[in-house]
Amino acid sequence: MDLIILAPIASILALLFATFLAWKVLKEDEGPADMQEISNAIRRAAATYLKREYSWVAVFFAVMAAVLTIMSFAGYLSPYVPIAFLRGGFFSAMAGYIGMWIATRASARTTIAAKESLNRGLRVAFASGSVMGLTVVGLALFDVSVWYYTLRYLGQTPQEIGETMLLFGIGASSMALFARVGGGIYTKGADVGADLVGKVEAGIPEDDPRNPAVIADNVGDNVGDVAGMGADLYESYMGSLVATVGLGAAAAMTISGYTESTVTSFLALPMVVAAMGILASMVSTFFVRTKEKAEQKELLWSLRKGVYGAAILAIALNYLAVVWVLGDNYIGMWGAILTGTVVGVVIGYTTEYFTSDNYKPTRTISEAALTGHATVMIRGLSVGMMSTVIPVLSVAGGALASFFLAGGSLDTPQMGLYGIGLSAVGMLSTLGITLATDAYGPVADNAGGLAEMTHQPEYVRERTDALDALGNTTAATGKGFAIGSAALTALALISGFLDEIRRFGMPDGSTATYTDVITTYDIHLLNPLLIAGVFIGAMIPFVFCALTMGAVGRAAQKIVEEVRRQFREIPGLLEGRKGVKPHYERVVDISTRAALKEMVVPALIAIAAPLTVGYIMGLAALLGLLVGSLGAGFVLAVFMANSGAAWDNAKKYIEKGNYGGKGSDAHKAAVTGDTVGDPFKDTSGPSLNILLKLMSMVSLVFGQLIIAMTLFHP
Amino acid sequence: MDLIILAPIASILALLFATFLAWKVLKEDEGPADMQEISNAIRRAAATYLKREYSWVAVFFAVMAAVLTIMSFAGYLSPYVPIAFLRGGFFSAMAGYIGMWIATRASARTTIAAKESLNRGLRVAFASGSVMGLTVVGLALFDVSVWYYTLRYLGQTPQEIGETMLLFGIGASSMALFARVGGGIYTKGADVGADLVGKVEAGIPEDDPRNPAVIADNVGDNVGDVAGMGADLYESYMGSLVATVGLGAAAAMTISGYTESTVTSFLALPMVVAAMGILASMVSTFFVRTKEKAEQKELLWSLRKGVYGAAILAIALNYLAVVWVLGDNYIGMWGAILTGTVVGVVIGYTTEYFTSDNYKPTRTISEAALTGHATVMIRGLSVGMMSTVIPVLSVAGGALASFFLAGGSLDTPQMGLYGIGLSAVGMLSTLGITLATDAYGPVADNAGGLAEMTHQPEYVRERTDALDALGNTTAATGKGFAIGSAALTALALISGFLDEIRRFGMPDGSTATYTDVITTYDIHLLNPLLIAGVFIGAMIPFVFCALTMGAVGRAAQKIVEEVRRQFREIPGLLEGRKGVKPHYERVVDISTRAALKEMVVPALIAIAAPLTVGYIMGLAALLGLLVGSLGAGFVLAVFMANSGAAWDNAKKYIEKGNYGGKGSDAHKAAVTGDTVGDPFKDTSGPSLNILLKLMSMVSLVFGQLIIAMTLFHP
Repeated sequence: MDLIILAPIASILALLFATFLAWKVLKEDEGPADMQEISNAIRRAAATYLKREYSWVAVFFAVMAAVLTIMSFAGYLSPYVPIAFLRGGFFSAMAGYIGMWIATRASARTTIAAKESLNRGLRVAFASGSVMGLTVVGLALFDVSVWYYTLRYLGQTPQEIGETMLLFGIGASSMALFARVGGGIYTKGADVGADLVGKVEAGIPEDDPRNPAVIADNVGDNVGDVAGMGADLYESYMGSLVATVGLGAAAAMTISGYTESTVTSFLALPMVVAAMGILASMVSTFFVRTKEKAEQKELLWSLRKGVYGAAILAIALNYLAVVWVLGDNYIGMWGAILTGTVVGVVIGYTTEYFTSDNYKPTRTISEAALTGHATVMIRGLSVGMMSTVIPVLSVAGGALASFFLAGGSLDTPQMGLYGIGLSAVGMLSTLGITLATDAYGPVADNAGGLAEMTHQPEYVRERTDALDALGNTTAATGKGFAIGSAALTALALISGFLDEIRRFGMPDGSTATYTDVITTYDIHLLNPLLIAGVFIGAMIPFVFCALTMGAVGRAAQKIVEEVRRQFREIPGLLEGRKGVKPHYERVVDISTRAALKEMVVPALIAIAAPLTVGYIMGLAALLGLLVGSLGAGFVLAVFMANSGAAWDNAKKYIEKGNYGGKGSDAHKAAVTGDTVGDPFKDTSGPSLNILLKLMSMVSLVFGQLIIAMTLFHP
Repeated sequence: MDLIILAPIASILALLFATFLAWKVLKEDEGPADMQEISNAIRRAAATYLKREYSWVAVFFAVMAAVLTIMSFAGYLSPYVPIAFLRGGFFSAMAGYIGMWIATRASARTTIAAKESLNRGLRVAFASGSVMGLTVVGLALFDVSVWYYTLRYLGQTPQEIGETMLLFGIGASSMALFARVGGGIYTKGADVGADLVGKVEAGIPEDDPRNPAVIADNVGDNVGDVAGMGADLYESYMGSLVATVGLGAAAAMTISGYTESTVTSFLALPMVVAAMGILASMVSTFFVRTKEKAEQKELLWSLRKGVYGAAILAIALNYLAVVWVLGDNYIGMWGAILTGTVVGVVIGYTTEYFTSDNYKPTRTISEAALTGHATVMIRGLSVGMMSTVIPVLSVAGGALASFFLAGGSLDTPQMGLYGIGLSAVGMLSTLGITLATDAYGPVADNAGGLAEMTHQPEYVRERTDALDALGNTTAATGKGFAIGSAALTALALISGFLDEIRRFGMPDGSTATYTDVITTYDIHLLNPLLIAGVFIGAMIPFVFCALTMGAVGRAAQKIVEEVRRQFREIPGLLEGRKGVKPHYERVVDISTRAALKEMVVPALIAIAAPLTVGYIMGLAALLGLLVGSLGAGFVLAVFMANSGAAWDNAKKYIEKGNYGGKGSDAHKAAVTGDTVGDPFKDTSGPSLNILLKLMSMVSLVFGQLIIAMTLFHP
């Protein structure tokens, strides 16, 4: 039986299940009129932002699609790539939009459900997160499997399908970068601005309706933490999938006496693994429930039941998948998939250790708050830097393990590179549920905001706060997954690029061996061009962070000025006089403009840097750039994500009454840490993983053109 | 004529001139009794710290020397290396000690001289800086040239001399790492601690004698910014010199029909270039003087006259050196040397642009202070990250330019690698004077402290402040030089390591070509072990910074607690009651202990990481580690050094009366930035460049052992 059919089946099931869950969420009580009014305002502002963002991005997509079309007419690219580019961008945007759509509809319903009970609140918020999680994986696997069948129908051989699909991730990646960067600037500009002038200056609580930035802050959660993350993880999932399908074809062709059916099996495996992961995720959503009066630990455990259940189920199902698809001889592939899952778990644990206030690192940050703002900063930076050790070692170790388990060797690495791809697929296969545990966070956050703004009883806010706090931990873990899988995927893509050079890059037009590639193009460490590429590559993530952090800083400053102006010029606003309302929409407008304006340059770097270096300095320098940026960017991303989360939780730990509690000087210092951490963990850090993949993807897609045009041809 | 003789001559001249300058400094008036008392206390504490530091380090040196001796008996190492190791460590330590010796004697004299006139103050402080600068270059060139003559006397061929001297940098590097890390933790722990509790909490001015941390802070300037920097730059200078001498032998041997005299000329050139640089530096010290009532710009110009004068003079002399030593055919080598000088100037300008308050970047940080601590942090981090672009591009471009100018090609890269080495030597050749402009800063800083503590008239403090502020700019530039030259030197050392593999690494014992090395050991980008090495390498600088920043944070916290205790428990101290003095020595003791304890682990990483990776994962992974850490570490070092300097000057810009001036909320926020910047620019950032070189050096020295022992042998 052709097991690939499992892929469209599982993806359609996921989408149907998501629809069912969405219907269930929408059935819930929307709350009283005042809550609906605010909730509608947030919904409208979020939708407006996404529409404007997507229209800007549409221009970019039109230009790029034109370029790609010309390239394919000129013979430098498969003619399917421009279509796949548009489709990938469209689905990634759609994943973000649907996530935002359900999240903005679920938050008021979560507030009301939480009023009833904590478990009900959890179920509603989690259902909304699951809609997003399943939509992401459903759409991605659907797109990939439809492509597979279409290309087969159009008469491509399995080898050709593999080679074509390797290039298919670029649309989703481009979209994801815009969504993450734009959304990240929006949400953190608004968040930082709101905190600085609200909590720190005016001394009013978070989400207080008097704060003119409060709506923008809540909109930001939806366009950044939901829509941006949705587009991002769509890209991670789909990117690892198509890269691995592509590497599968190359791997199968190293088997002596391979047939079309061998190649088909190697193409099939990643899709089947993804299908198994989806099934496991759907089943496991039912494990997520909690009892009343659950403590933080029990809440976390209720989510963990879902995530671990899915992982264990997926591991078992993947064993069957490998045996069915490839047979007993290739059981090493299961080892590679398993490696990915294990690395994911290790990263998750490490992230938790370094960012949760149950452990020492975060508590030392809280303690450092006693001696002021500066020591909080120094300590937090130090904790984040230290937290990179285990993730880096486990990804490096995981890459090696999956390479060798899959049967790779230094002479014929193809099988091993396929194994690295499979480990990324394995890490992400249960994304349906891990993303659900992540995406429910912003819903709970918004639910808390609504509770505050509509003056709900204290216990409602307490319950949504409990849900929200949990969301911080799962969000940090989710980012660890995204970064770890990105490192593996980017590694696989770089190998794909080397393979492309092997097929198209020989000066005499022949198909060469890897050794020919290495020696012809001097892709080794004695080539100063390659080393110069590494230097430039290592710099790019820093520049990218400089731009995105700078953008957040600038947006926040503008918002602070506007909020101060409103407090000054609107009589009675700060005192809370009845009937006096701030001009929320002006802050929303500032955030929107800032995000749209500032997302362009960082995104262009991802496209321009590899093309420029490849054109001027040649292929070896370009490969150096990719490896240099991957190394430095991966470490920087982990550092920033973890520092940010640790600062956030260090502040929360003080708010629980430690080291002086809320309002103390230590608390103020901790708020500074949290505020600096915001763009670390939600703008710059998570965008980096897309940057790394997009640069590899651009090199791949433009590869043949670069090979033909580069000034530095041997 | 054998031009190498210029090297010992120039070095002895430098040392004599340094002695003369020291004598001139000591002739100055030491000031009244109360100033002498404080000055003596600082001097004693600094000497005590250095003695204790050196005794700890002596243990390390004894162990390492034993290891190296055993290795050379076993045939894995030249028998001269253990001696060179000890000698390099000794001279590096001595350079630091002499710098500290004169600096602690010059500061009171500078205060008194500044009382007389600004120009007199500048001359005394600068003379003390020149003592240090000339001592560093004099000792280094003396050591190298004595080695050269000794080895020749002992009958080594020029080729052998080159191969042996390539391994000679490790002693100075090890010493430098301990000195920079230990000194950096000491000085910044004390500085941060003093600022946090003094300026921020108690609201007393900097260097107020009531602050129990004030002596430790001033001692810190001497053991960190003077002794640490002296050992560091001794290492940079000597490291680039011996590496280039080593690469010179390899380069000469690629010339068809080379003779011993050809090889000797190639060995000679870097030494002669260094000698020319020393002569240029000595002459140019006379250009440094200023008129009375000089403004900041004129002061800067007076230092610049010295630095630029030396550079122009050196460029001219180096032209002669190349023509005399190698002849007209190798004029490309002059291009390589010139490239280094130009890259140095470009880095200097960029550093100034990003860190001086005359330009926009630093002023935007000051502006961000208006919206609080968090925006100062975000903006400063963003500025520092952005400031990496030009230095990275110019070092990458400079490395390529000097490679090709020197006649390197991808098939026979030796000549080009020699060119890269020469460009590092060119960048550092005028270190005698650039270091003087850098080392005079802490003297002026201490002079200001003494003025404050002995209640000198206002205008004295103003003059020393003017000198000190200038020192901040020159210090930032000096760090840019150290980092840029380190990147080039490390690059040269990595090539030296590849050359070592070529000579000793072939499984059949033959001497191979570079292509053999690359293909036998898979030192290319398709090798997953190498990529895993890059990941681990990119992580190491972050871990190193986590440790050093964490150490500063911990030391500062301890000091804050002690100072708070003294303010609480010593009656009348904070009010400034007559005759009540704090227990300075307790804070000095805390700083000393913290620095000594915390310097060990970071230093061990530099030794252990390459050995472990090389042993377990093989040579390709080790080379990946070196390249990964070089790429990430170089960018990180520039970022941290520049962020730190920019925060410092952003604070000073506010203190000049902008954005609310001293005491405003903006000023408090800027002080936070400055405090976080302290370990960035004076502990973690500048230690990174030593780390990068030491790891390459360890790989080189242990190279034959690693080749023989590694588990991953092809």
